[in-house]
Amino acid sequence: MSELYEKLRPHIERQFALDCALTLYSWDNETLAPKDAMENTAKIIGTLSAQAYGALVNDEVRTLLASLREPKEFDVLSSVEQSIVKKLNKNFDRLEKIPANEYRAYSELTAKAGSIWAKAKTENDFAAFAPSLKEIVSYQKKFAAYTKKPEMSLYDAMLDENEEGILTRELDIFFEKIKETVVPLLKKVVAKNDTVNKDYNSRHFPVERQKEFCRFLAEYIGFDFNRGVMAESAHPFTTNLHNHDVRITNHFYENNLESAMFSVIHEGGHALYELGVDDALTLTPVGGGTSMGVHESQSRFYENILGRSEAFWKPLFGKLQENYPEVLSGVDLKDFIRGINKAEPGPIRTEADELTYPLHIIIRYEIEKMLMEDLISVDELPRVWNEKYKEYLGVTPKNDTEGVLQDVHWSGGAFGYFPSYAIGNAVAAQIYAYMHNEVNVKECLEKGNLIPIREYLREHIHCFGSTKNMNELLIAMTGEPLNAEYYTKYLTEKYTKLYLE
Amino acid sequence: MSELYEKLRPHIERQFALDCALTLYSWDNETLAPKDAMENTAKIIGTLSAQAYGALVNDEVRTLLASLREPKEFDVLSSVEQSIVKKLNKNFDRLEKIPANEYRAYSELTAKAGSIWAKAKTENDFAAFAPSLKEIVSYQKKFAAYTKKPEMSLYDAMLDENEEGILTRELDIFFEKIKETVVPLLKKVVAKNDTVNKDYNSRHFPVERQKEFCRFLAEYIGFDFNRGVMAESAHPFTTNLHNHDVRITNHFYENNLESAMFSVIHEGGHALYELGVDDALTLTPVGGGTSMGVHESQSRFYENILGRSEAFWKPLFGKLQENYPEVLSGVDLKDFIRGINKAEPGPIRTEADELTYPLHIIIRYEIEKMLMEDLISVDELPRVWNEKYKEYLGVTPKNDTEGVLQDVHWSGGAFGYFPSYAIGNAVAAQIYAYMHNEVNVKECLEKGNLIPIREYLREHIHCFGSTKNMNELLIAMTGEPLNAEYYTKYLTEKYTKLYLE
Repeated sequence: MSELYEKLRPHIERQFALDCALTLYSWDNETLAPKDAMENTAKIIGTLSAQAYGALVNDEVRTLLASLREPKEFDVLSSVEQSIVKKLNKNFDRLEKIPANEYRAYSELTAKAGSIWAKAKTENDFAAFAPSLKEIVSYQKKFAAYTKKPEMSLYDAMLDENEEGILTRELDIFFEKIKETVVPLLKKVVAKNDTVNKDYNSRHFPVERQKEFCRFLAEYIGFDFNRGVMAESAHPFTTNLHNHDVRITNHFYENNLESAMFSVIHEGGHALYELGVDDALTLTPVGGGTSMGVHESQSRFYENILGRSEAFWKPLFGKLQENYPEVLSGVDLKDFIRGINKAEPGPIRTEADELTYPLHIIIRYEIEKMLMEDLISVDELPRVWNEKYKEYLGVTPKNDTEGVLQDVHWSGGAFGYFPSYAIGNAVAAQIYAYMHNEVNVKECLEKGNLIPIREYLREHIHCFGSTKNMNELLIAMTGEPLNAEYYTKYLTEKYTKLYLE
Repeated sequence: MSELYEKLRPHIERQFALDCALTLYSWDNETLAPKDAMENTAKIIGTLSAQAYGALVNDEVRTLLASLREPKEFDVLSSVEQSIVKKLNKNFDRLEKIPANEYRAYSELTAKAGSIWAKAKTENDFAAFAPSLKEIVSYQKKFAAYTKKPEMSLYDAMLDENEEGILTRELDIFFEKIKETVVPLLKKVVAKNDTVNKDYNSRHFPVERQKEFCRFLAEYIGFDFNRGVMAESAHPFTTNLHNHDVRITNHFYENNLESAMFSVIHEGGHALYELGVDDALTLTPVGGGTSMGVHESQSRFYENILGRSEAFWKPLFGKLQENYPEVLSGVDLKDFIRGINKAEPGPIRTEADELTYPLHIIIRYEIEKMLMEDLISVDELPRVWNEKYKEYLGVTPKNDTEGVLQDVHWSGGAFGYFPSYAIGNAVAAQIYAYMHNEVNVKECLEKGNLIPIREYLREHIHCFGSTKNMNELLIAMTGEPLNAEYYTKYLTEKYTKLYLE
């Protein structure tokens, strides 16, 4: 046992507890808090954030971490302790460069901005959100300038926060490869797609029945309601407090069958990741998923690779039909599978099919890059957004609500996050390509037993929390680091088989 | 502006933010958290509690408070600041006597005990709860011993925490007076009560319709859903985070019309108190209701004095009938008023009528006193409980679930709290007797406009938060301190008029 580590432990506990309280606040704000609470609540969040900052950035922790960097001290730590110390070093080095008062003001700002954005979106009023967004962008740039490595651009520093080492240089190549495949493939598919009739999707699906079916789906993929809950929010998301308390939300539309169903499978995938973290890691700084990209690989694996496959629905489609008597009669499994995979360029990312989805991400990536390089201003965002949608998807949002205001991310300061969705798709496809060696995925799905799939992911990814990074996980599982080929191959094969043969 | 106070301010903010986070955790645990989360969550709560303790009990605060006790420093403070400093002194003096590690362990213990109690209650298994209860009792005694004034008994110290200065000496007299009135009155009323048929109350009332009606009732009495929310929990309760975020819960039974309806009026009364606290006080240590007794005076004023009166239901009864088509036809307003006021000795406090209610409190008061004076042990509680119910109410609980396990309070360490319910009744009756001078309560109720009533209470009680104590408020409003006569007179007149004339 390391004496130094034992001295560090209460600091770790304090910071973790404060972070956890902030997570609970954020959950509560998204799901329940009354609308006029935010002004006061933001002050409380600011104060708690300042305490979380101070729990890490203080002289005692600085001294302890410095001593623990010495090999003779570091080497005697257990491997979990080593991971924690490494993570703390990283967090400490970053955080101490940000002035405490700015950190606190930024926390208050983003706590408030969520409801300002939500109101602006409802009222189609970008101008009402723009002042907050300008402040957030300005803080983001300042923080990136404080913390970035000398060779990095500001946007690279933000990307690095989300997926270590996957910067614009890597992403430019990555997205180029995706474009090369997706743009021509999409053209061909769309030409055939018109024959796919998915009118059924906008029939009437009572919300209470949707809720029941979504609850069933969550359990079906392996979500444990003794260790998690499901609630509602404007946008579906997942929150984890620890590995025995993981929460997903959903949003229900009476005239949309797919939306809530695929959201629950998506968020369920995130949740399985957090529920699968080892007990020895939870309640520590390495107790959550390792990166946004790996997180999205789990959610999008469940949502798309499993959830939009025929094998997944084979044992379930009858139950789905029964859940909406008459509404789905006359739709057979084949129609349904073609329906849920229909590629249709549209303005909304979260409603996008698997093929147009990466184009939504590329648009955001390019816009964020321009914004952070000062090539465009916040005020120009609506125009640039619409131009990019025209260019990549051939659609023009009919207003800012379905355009630049559609996503919550920027209101929380999540710049550099969007690429994670595309990275996640690629990681998922790569894992999927190798998973077959150990698990007969198709058979599991057709038999309605998804546990072996969850267990495979738990054993190779989930249990490690953030003690290993994306490429360490991928190399251990697949023998190679991130390789976009698997993703482009997966899309090509899937869509060729569905519509082009 | 006081320099010393400005130095104190960040300490106050830190402690308040931590307390608020703990309140949010407690809300979350009661309403939503998954059942297997508690083991981990209790550790987080323990850590946060220790930080809240340390945010107040530290050398810097000690020095600042000591300096601020000097008249030349204290006198220059604003009156709000003076109230805050007084409250902090009180909290500091108490808390510093409790060792930090015990405070933390106790916080963890009570965080966990709630779910242990809930399970024990469901499973009618007192033995499963007894070990936790023993630990809690033992901590309560220790803390009381640390903090009490020399002349106080342990139980007096606990009572003093809930209602300053209302100790066993006062309560013995208070309860004696109530018994003198209630016991003979109840006998007479029960003899006549048999003629009151309230079979309608156990008909079928769909939960969704109950929820709608309860939401309506909350708004009707003045609850603002922009500054509050309503959720569900095993036992109805009210939580306040600040004066723009006040939360009430309810519990719905399909075959009980009254339960949820009177709960929402009761919790609504608590909530109006917290919503009415002045903006200058919220987010400070004097930003909540002043005491448990005054809090219960507000809830029980709304629930009983207003909510069980004929004038209250005159404009509402038609709407209630419409809400449950056919189920309530054949019941007229007079029947209903006699029904909701029917005095029936029963085993459950929260379902008790206004006349038997104080007897439930007296039972708990006597039991707590014996327990804290070591006259009985935790293991003897079920037996003593049942004996007291036989003695005071002539009923024997059919098991511990409806006996000693019925209330949540002890699992949270709330000893000395129960008398607040009776004090609240008495305060409410006293306020009511004087309120007539300024507000025509009957006319407000009959016209369906309850705002003048809320405004009266806001102006004379709510706005002050805890800057004034119970007797200061009462003297300002009624010219005298707490006087139980108003309560016994109110009960006698009400029940005589209803059943004995």
